[in-house]
Amino acid sequence: MLGQIGEHARPAEAHEPDPDTATGSTPGTTPGTVHVVGLGPGPDRWLTPEVAELLGRVDHVVGYAPYVDRVPQREGLTRHASGNTVEVERGRLALDLAARGDEVAVVSGGDAGVFGMASAVFEAVENAVADDPHYAQVPVQVYPGVSAAQAAAALVGAPLGADFAIMSLSDRLKPWQVVADRLRAAASVDLVIALYNPRSLSRPEQLFAARDVLLEVKDPSTVVVVARDVGRAEQSATVTTLGEFDPATVDMKCLVIIGSSSTRVSPTGHVWTPRYVE
Amino acid sequence: MLGQIGEHARPAEAHEPDPDTATGSTPGTTPGTVHVVGLGPGPDRWLTPEVAELLGRVDHVVGYAPYVDRVPQREGLTRHASGNTVEVERGRLALDLAARGDEVAVVSGGDAGVFGMASAVFEAVENAVADDPHYAQVPVQVYPGVSAAQAAAALVGAPLGADFAIMSLSDRLKPWQVVADRLRAAASVDLVIALYNPRSLSRPEQLFAARDVLLEVKDPSTVVVVARDVGRAEQSATVTTLGEFDPATVDMKCLVIIGSSSTRVSPTGHVWTPRYVE
Repeated sequence: MLGQIGEHARPAEAHEPDPDTATGSTPGTTPGTVHVVGLGPGPDRWLTPEVAELLGRVDHVVGYAPYVDRVPQREGLTRHASGNTVEVERGRLALDLAARGDEVAVVSGGDAGVFGMASAVFEAVENAVADDPHYAQVPVQVYPGVSAAQAAAALVGAPLGADFAIMSLSDRLKPWQVVADRLRAAASVDLVIALYNPRSLSRPEQLFAARDVLLEVKDPSTVVVVARDVGRAEQSATVTTLGEFDPATVDMKCLVIIGSSSTRVSPTGHVWTPRYVE
Repeated sequence: MLGQIGEHARPAEAHEPDPDTATGSTPGTTPGTVHVVGLGPGPDRWLTPEVAELLGRVDHVVGYAPYVDRVPQREGLTRHASGNTVEVERGRLALDLAARGDEVAVVSGGDAGVFGMASAVFEAVENAVADDPHYAQVPVQVYPGVSAAQAAAALVGAPLGADFAIMSLSDRLKPWQVVADRLRAAASVDLVIALYNPRSLSRPEQLFAARDVLLEVKDPSTVVVVARDVGRAEQSATVTTLGEFDPATVDMKCLVIIGSSSTRVSPTGHVWTPRYVE
């Protein structure tokens, strides 16, 4: 057994910081906590009370600008907005602020643990501790939230009602071959597949390639959902089939769900996947 | 294209009920809505404001007794608690109550769309419409919530920080061979795997079989998390390896997460999976 974790994970070493060698923390200061939170996929109606309470008392909010903007300004709060694709730098900033003794919230849209900031914060911790072991004493706590995949699923019905996979289609952080192999494997055992980052201006072709991989395995009649702007006033969902699915209609604001062989449209117009496999 | 869904899914047919043939609805009555909600994995701090508001105004709450018990009694509310494994009957009851014109909440723990009641409600809709087409006019709406897998992940860090699969290990609704094939496929492409229903008194051996399937593909050093009673005061998590993992320590109160090859323990004692694949 590697370890036992109680109320929440604690630093591996609990000894006092050594003021002579601490570079990542202010000497003699008890570090604050890095709280890694998800705001849900848009409206406050999906923000958990736990996270709402936390955002009302932290000293700093750190995150991608559109998410930081969702946290109202108030006295005593400093908001640190950054651009996209600088997740690890953002995590390091949060660690540095907490090491000074401040309480810091790192914010993501959706759930921080599902293609949000949680993994990037631990990447930052690993890098920071390599620079200075005292960073291991900065407490980190992750809070669950509602993910975009869940909100998209609820919008149309219950497409994730059986076994499913959640994948990012982006090859920014992994080779395309890994993406393709994972799609093929998930499709071959009839998992429902929810695709994050399905298509962007810099990656216009991959969703076409993904569709072709899926069509090697799955029937063209497989139900496909394209959910757009989930949680926003203008949210919508298009229900189509894999054979008729046109990836050109998809952009960064979309989440794509590929059904299993049993995913169907109900008499009420909802998309759902039966719990059972016959 | 099969359809387009806006704010939420609407009945496929919008014509008025025919009072002479309606058996599923009270003649001349405008049906209420079946609201399918998740309460989150335990405490109210994970209950979304959307669902909290809804539970304050519905006429009926329908669900498995421990979840119904979490909705406080108040004037004007009728609570319908049922046993486990009668999900579709429960969905039909909700449809019948809504067909009479009442507002009905069907409650699950966690997220209704992830091994919760959402899929069972659409199964009930399909059956009911086969009996009486008018059931298609009862509006159904699903609301997203925090799932047990997300809460378990947050408790230990960010194990679901990359591509992952969520599966039920139970063979109550699908053949064991399907479960085994899905485990093998997910493991073969290095997806993180979260297992619902990992073990029960009536299915004591399957988690052993699952471990053996996984060890055919994965290294014995693969990180495994057993989260127990997530969201309750007594919640805990044990971090071990696939080689040392003892399924006998797992029961119905547990959720098991099997890491990818890169899932690791951070210097802060958290379990996390890097976003990147090298």
